[in-house]
Amino acid sequence: MANSTSPIRVGILGASGYTGAELVRMLLRHPGVEICALTAERQAGKPMAEVFPHLGQFNLPGLVKIEEVAWDKLDAVFCALPHGTTQEVIAGLPRHIKVVDLSADFRLSDPAEYATWYGHEHRAVELQKEVAYGLTEFNRQGVRKARVVANPGCYPTCSLLALLPLLMDEMIEPGGIVIDAKSGVSGAGRDAKQQNLFTEVSEGFNAYGVGHHRHMPEIEQELRLAAGRPVTVSFTPHLVPMNRGMMATIYVRMADGVTADDLRATLTARYESEPFVNVTAAGIAPATRHVRASNQALIGVFPDRTPRGAIIVSVIDNLVKGASGQAIQNMNVMFGLGETTGLEQAPLFP
Amino acid sequence: MANSTSPIRVGILGASGYTGAELVRMLLRHPGVEICALTAERQAGKPMAEVFPHLGQFNLPGLVKIEEVAWDKLDAVFCALPHGTTQEVIAGLPRHIKVVDLSADFRLSDPAEYATWYGHEHRAVELQKEVAYGLTEFNRQGVRKARVVANPGCYPTCSLLALLPLLMDEMIEPGGIVIDAKSGVSGAGRDAKQQNLFTEVSEGFNAYGVGHHRHMPEIEQELRLAAGRPVTVSFTPHLVPMNRGMMATIYVRMADGVTADDLRATLTARYESEPFVNVTAAGIAPATRHVRASNQALIGVFPDRTPRGAIIVSVIDNLVKGASGQAIQNMNVMFGLGETTGLEQAPLFP
Amino acid sequence: MANSTSPIRVGILGASGYTGAELVRMLLRHPGVEICALTAERQAGKPMAEVFPHLGQFNLPGLVKIEEVAWDKLDAVFCALPHGTTQEVIAGLPRHIKVVDLSADFRLSDPAEYATWYGHEHRAVELQKEVAYGLTEFNRQGVRKARVVANPGCYPTCSLLALLPLLMDEMIEPGGIVIDAKSGVSGAGRDAKQQNLFTEVSEGFNAYGVGHHRHMPEIEQELRLAAGRPVTVSFTPHLVPMNRGMMATIYVRMADGVTADDLRATLTARYESEPFVNVTAAGIAPATRHVRASNQALIGVFPDRTPRGAIIVSVIDNLVKGASGQAIQNMNVMFGLGETTGLEQAPLFP
Amino acid sequence: MANSTSPIRVGILGASGYTGAELVRMLLRHPGVEICALTAERQAGKPMAEVFPHLGQFNLPGLVKIEEVAWDKLDAVFCALPHGTTQEVIAGLPRHIKVVDLSADFRLSDPAEYATWYGHEHRAVELQKEVAYGLTEFNRQGVRKARVVANPGCYPTCSLLALLPLLMDEMIEPGGIVIDAKSGVSGAGRDAKQQNLFTEVSEGFNAYGVGHHRHMPEIEQELRLAAGRPVTVSFTPHLVPMNRGMMATIYVRMADGVTADDLRATLTARYESEPFVNVTAAGIAPATRHVRASNQALIGVFPDRTPRGAIIVSVIDNLVKGASGQAIQNMNVMFGLGETTGLEQAPLFP
Repeated sequence: MANSTSPIRVGILGASGYTGAELVRMLLRHPGVEICALTAERQAGKPMAEVFPHLGQFNLPGLVKIEEVAWDKLDAVFCALPHGTTQEVIAGLPRHIKVVDLSADFRLSDPAEYATWYGHEHRAVELQKEVAYGLTEFNRQGVRKARVVANPGCYPTCSLLALLPLLMDEMIEPGGIVIDAKSGVSGAGRDAKQQNLFTEVSEGFNAYGVGHHRHMPEIEQELRLAAGRPVTVSFTPHLVPMNRGMMATIYVRMADGVTADDLRATLTARYESEPFVNVTAAGIAPATRHVRASNQALIGVFPDRTPRGAIIVSVIDNLVKGASGQAIQNMNVMFGLGETTGLEQAPLFP
Repeated sequence: MANSTSPIRVGILGASGYTGAELVRMLLRHPGVEICALTAERQAGKPMAEVFPHLGQFNLPGLVKIEEVAWDKLDAVFCALPHGTTQEVIAGLPRHIKVVDLSADFRLSDPAEYATWYGHEHRAVELQKEVAYGLTEFNRQGVRKARVVANPGCYPTCSLLALLPLLMDEMIEPGGIVIDAKSGVSGAGRDAKQQNLFTEVSEGFNAYGVGHHRHMPEIEQELRLAAGRPVTVSFTPHLVPMNRGMMATIYVRMADGVTADDLRATLTARYESEPFVNVTAAGIAPATRHVRASNQALIGVFPDRTPRGAIIVSVIDNLVKGASGQAIQNMNVMFGLGETTGLEQAPLFP
Repeated sequence: MANSTSPIRVGILGASGYTGAELVRMLLRHPGVEICALTAERQAGKPMAEVFPHLGQFNLPGLVKIEEVAWDKLDAVFCALPHGTTQEVIAGLPRHIKVVDLSADFRLSDPAEYATWYGHEHRAVELQKEVAYGLTEFNRQGVRKARVVANPGCYPTCSLLALLPLLMDEMIEPGGIVIDAKSGVSGAGRDAKQQNLFTEVSEGFNAYGVGHHRHMPEIEQELRLAAGRPVTVSFTPHLVPMNRGMMATIYVRMADGVTADDLRATLTARYESEPFVNVTAAGIAPATRHVRASNQALIGVFPDRTPRGAIIVSVIDNLVKGASGQAIQNMNVMFGLGETTGLEQAPLFP
Repeated sequence: MANSTSPIRVGILGASGYTGAELVRMLLRHPGVEICALTAERQAGKPMAEVFPHLGQFNLPGLVKIEEVAWDKLDAVFCALPHGTTQEVIAGLPRHIKVVDLSADFRLSDPAEYATWYGHEHRAVELQKEVAYGLTEFNRQGVRKARVVANPGCYPTCSLLALLPLLMDEMIEPGGIVIDAKSGVSGAGRDAKQQNLFTEVSEGFNAYGVGHHRHMPEIEQELRLAAGRPVTVSFTPHLVPMNRGMMATIYVRMADGVTADDLRATLTARYESEPFVNVTAAGIAPATRHVRASNQALIGVFPDRTPRGAIIVSVIDNLVKGASGQAIQNMNVMFGLGETTGLEQAPLFP
C-alpha cells in the first residue's frame, strides 16, 4: 500500500471510454498516483495514444486485456466497465486491491431491485454487502473504510447533492418531487451508435428513457434513506447537444412555513466546508459552463409561484463530479490523501 | 382586399430580426402573398440583402422606417416589433389593415395583468378588446373575424397544444402542473448581447428567468379558460445550444382512473384533422429535430411511476410554429386562404 | 414517360441515408413528381417514418429491397447507393428508366483512372460511355439527352463552379491551384462510426484524406477539359463541426494583366442568367450559412498580396447543390421541366 | 523579484476578456505565482466572480482600473488590453515590472510596417527596441533577458512553428507559401457583436479578412528572418463554429530532392526536446481536439501530388499556446522558472 514515498499504483479497467480517458487526464496531474495498467478488451495491444490521440504526448502503459494485468503490482483500480460484466470482474480481484467502480453494478443495495431494473440476478450479492456508496460528501466514513466503492451515477450525483440536505432537515416534502434532468452527450459513451452521431444530435434536443431510466431507483434509494420513508420521483433525462455538463431542474414542495431562502441557507450551511459543492446567491442561476471540466457542483434555489413551491437548479460536469472526478475523490478518501488532490483544476471556459 | 386574382399585399414591421427573416423565407414561397414593405428602424435605408445575406438572391423591398410605409398599398402587416412599442404602432394603423402581432403586447387580455408583468399601463386598452388570441387550433373562429391577432408566445404555443385538450376534457388536474421548457437560442433575438455570444452559449446549458418569465401569465390565462378556474403552473425556461427548436416537458396529475394511454388517445383524437399537430405512438419521444424549420408540433405522452402521474413532451420550432409560421397560419385564416398555404415544407434534417 | 398531366414517377434507391432523406424532403414539394418507391437494404420492411421520424407526417412508400421494386411503375430513379455496388445496379435497370446517380461510380470517364482510385476494375464500362456528367450549369445539353447522369461530388461541384469559367477564359493559370476545402459532417453519411460521434466531432476541426481524397481525380478531370491540358491540384478536405455546408477556399495565379476584379467580372457574366449560382460584390465573403438548405452556390473573389495571386471562396450546401438538389436539377433538365422546379426554397437562417 | 520562497506577484491588465480568464485559470495552478491585481476598465469595481462565474469558487482580487494598481506590489504583468491602447500603458509602467504583452502592439519591429497595418504612428517606438518577440521555442535567449515580451499572435504561432525550421534549413522555398487558417470563435473576443452571436456562428463556416488580416505582416516578418529574404504569403483566416482551437493548413514547395518525409524528419528533430511541440507520425492528421485546453502544438506533414508539393497541418489551442499559455511559458523563461510550470495539463477531450 502507498505511503508518503511511494505513489499509489492504479489500474484503469475499461480505459478506452470517455470516463477512462478522463481518469487518465486527471490522474496524470495527481502527485500521489502512478498509472500502472490500462485495459480495454477490443483495443488491447494498442498504445493509448492510438485510441486517444490527445494523450499522445504522455508516457502511458499500453492497453491490455484484463487477464494480462499484474495485480500484485497494483494498489487500486478504477473500474469503468459496462454494467453487468463488472460485478464478476470485481468479485474476482485479489483482495489487496481497492476498487472504485464507476459502473452501476453495486449502486443498488437491494438485489431484488437490481434484478428488477437490470433484468437478471445480481452475480456478486455477497460482495454487494461490503460496498460503500460513494457520494463522498454524504458517506466519507463509509468510503474511508471500504474496499469497494460504488461511484454514483451522474444523474444521482447531480440530483442528490441538491435534495439530500433538504430531506434530512425536513425542509421539503418527500412526495411530488420532479427532477427534469439534462446531460451532455459524453454520458452516452464512445460506442459507435447512429443516434449519437454529430448529425443526429447537434441542432436538436430530446428526452429519452422517459419514465424508466435506470438512474431512478438509485436516486430513490438514497432519497429514501434521507427521508426515512419510500420516495418516488418523477424523473426525465434529456440529451443536450454539448459534450459535457449536466443539469437537474428540481421542483419541490417546501414544508409548512419554509421559504426558498431557507432552503438556500440550509444548503449553504451544509456545504460551507465542502470543497466541491457551492451554492449560488439568490437570483443567480447555475449553468453547466460554470463547472465544465472541474469537480465542482453548483446549486441554486429559486422561489416558485405555486403554493410552497421551490425550484432547485443543480449542475455538474457529468464526466468529472458525475464520474471520474468523484471516483478520484473517493480514491483520495480511501487512501487517506487530501480529498482535493489532483482535482483542483479550475473550470474551463469558454 | 385580396381576391382570387390579386395577392395579399403584406408588410413586415421589424424585418431585421429572426422572426422577420423567417416570415420572409416562408412568404417567398406563399402563392397568395406579395411582400410589399419591410421596416427596420436602425437599418432603414439598407437593402434586405445587406442585413440578411442569405436572402440576397431575392428581389425584396428595401428596409424603411415605419413612417415611410405606404399603408394604402398594404392589406396586412406582420408586426415583429419589441413589446411595449408595438401597442402604439398597431393602434395607429389604418383600420383596413389586418394585423398579426408577434409581440407580447396583446396576448394578455387583462390590462391589470399586463401592467403587473410589464411594469407599465397598457397604452391601447381599447384595441385589446378586439384582438383575437391566435393559437389557431383553438380559436379559428375568433381569428377568422379578427382585425388584429395576437400571435402566441413560443413557450405558450408549445405548452398549450399539449395541455388544453386534456384540461378541457378534465383528463388532468389543473393543479401541480410543472412545465420544464427548453429553447434554442434564436428565441433570444438578434441583438448583440454578450450572454448570447457563441462562446457564452455553446457547450453549455442554463436556466433563465426562473420563477418569473413573462410567458407564464400567458400560459396561465389560457389554462384558466380551459379549466374554468385559476391555474398556477411551475415553469422554468432553459437555453439549449442550438439555433432552433423548443421542448416542453410537462408533468401532470391525471384524473382518477385516467391512464397515459387515455391522455394520448384524447390528444390523438383532438388533433386528428389538424395539419400541424401530431401525436407520437406510445414509447416514441418527440425531438426538436423532427420538426425543425417546419410548422409542425409533435406531442408524446408517457406514464410516470408516481401516483396518477404522466409526462408529456411537446416540441415545435420556436421560430415557425412558435412565431412566424403560426403567424402565417393565422393570416391564412384571416383571409380565408387554405390554412396550410405556404407552410407545407417538410422539416429539415439534419 | 411523364406528360403535362401525369407526374414523373420516381424511385429513390438508398433512401435511408441523408441524401435520400434530402431528396424526399425536396421532392415532396416538387409539383411534377410522385415518389413511388424507396429502397434500403438493411431497413427494408420499415416505414420511412421509423427511419426518419421528421418525415413521419407524410404519406410515403415503405422501404423495400431493390429487387422488390416494380420498375414498370417508375419513370426515373435517384441512385443514392454506396459506390462500387452502384454500377451493377444501374447496369441492370430497365432501359426505360432515367437515372440520376449520386454515387461516384460514373463520374470518372476513364476506366483506368477509376481503377487507380477505387482499387478494382469498373464493372459497367460500356454503360459509362452513355453517362453525362451532371454539373448542370456546364453540361445542360448532355444532361438533357442522357439516360444516366453522374451527379457530381460535393467538393467537385463547389470547386468547379468557381474554377471552370476562369480556366475556360484563360483568366488563371492551370498550374499551382490550391483548393482548401471544408465540409459539414452530413457529408460523412449516416453510418454509425465512432469518428463521427457528436463527442468526437463537436468543438474540434480536422483535415482528412490529406493528399489522397477520391474527389481529386474528378476535379482534375473537369479542370483538364476546361484548360485543355492536364491539371494537378493541391486539395485538402476538412471536417467542420456543423451539419451542412461546404466551402472551397481556392488560391490561384492569374494570367498576365488580369486582376481579381476581372475574375469577378468573368464569373458574374458567366452566371448572370443562372438561377443557382451567384457572385458576391467585392469585399463580401460568402458564408455557408448564406446557402444552407438551398440549391444555391455563392462565389466571392479577392485579391491576394502575392504576385498575380487571387483567392476565391465558393460555398454550397453539400446535401443540396452538392448532392440531392443538383440531382433534382438534373432530373428537371432530363424531363424538360423548369430547371428550378422544386428547388425554389430560400436558405434557412439561422 | 521572486526567489525560491516568495512567489512572483503578477497582475493581469484586461482581465475581463477570454485571454484574461484563461491566464487566471492556468495561473491558479501555477505553484510559483500569486495573482495580485486584475484590471478591467468597464467592469472595475466588480468581483471577478460576477464577470466570470466559473471562477466564483476562487479567492481572487476584485477588478480595478489600471490607475488603481499598486505597482510596487507587483513583479510582472500580463497585458491583455486592446491593441493601440497597450503601447502607452506599457510605456508608462515602472521599470521593475516585467511585461508579457498579449496585444499586437509590439509584435512588428518595424514602426513603418506598424503604421501601415494599424493606421497610426506607433506611440512607443523607443520601447519597441527593447522588446523580445516571444515565440518561445525560437527566442528563449531573447525572452530570458527581456523586460517586455511581445507574445505572438495565434495565427503566427500556429504557422511559424510549422514553417520556421523548414525555412531555416532551406527544406522549402520561401515563395508561394499558402496558409489556410481556421480559428475557433474565442479568438474574436468577448465583446457583444452581432456577428459573433451563437445564432450567427453555429452551423456555419466563413472566411474573413481575406487578403488583409493583420497577422500577415507578423508572419512575414518572422519568415523573412528565417529565410533571409522577403517572404509574401497567401493567408486566409476562417471562423470555425467551436470555442477553441486553431489549424493552419499550409501548402509549400519543397527544395529540390526533398521529400515530405524529410520535412517531417526535420521538424521531429527540431522539436525533439521541446515540451510543447510534437510532430505526428506519417499519415496521422492533427486535429484541434488533440490539443484543446493545453499548451501543445501538433504538426503533421503530408506529401502532395503536385510537383515538389507538401502539405503541413499545424494545430494549437488559440487561447493557450496561441495566447495565455505561451504568455505563461514566456513568463517562466523571464523569471528562470521551469518552462512547463503551470502548463502541464493534459488536453481536454471530449
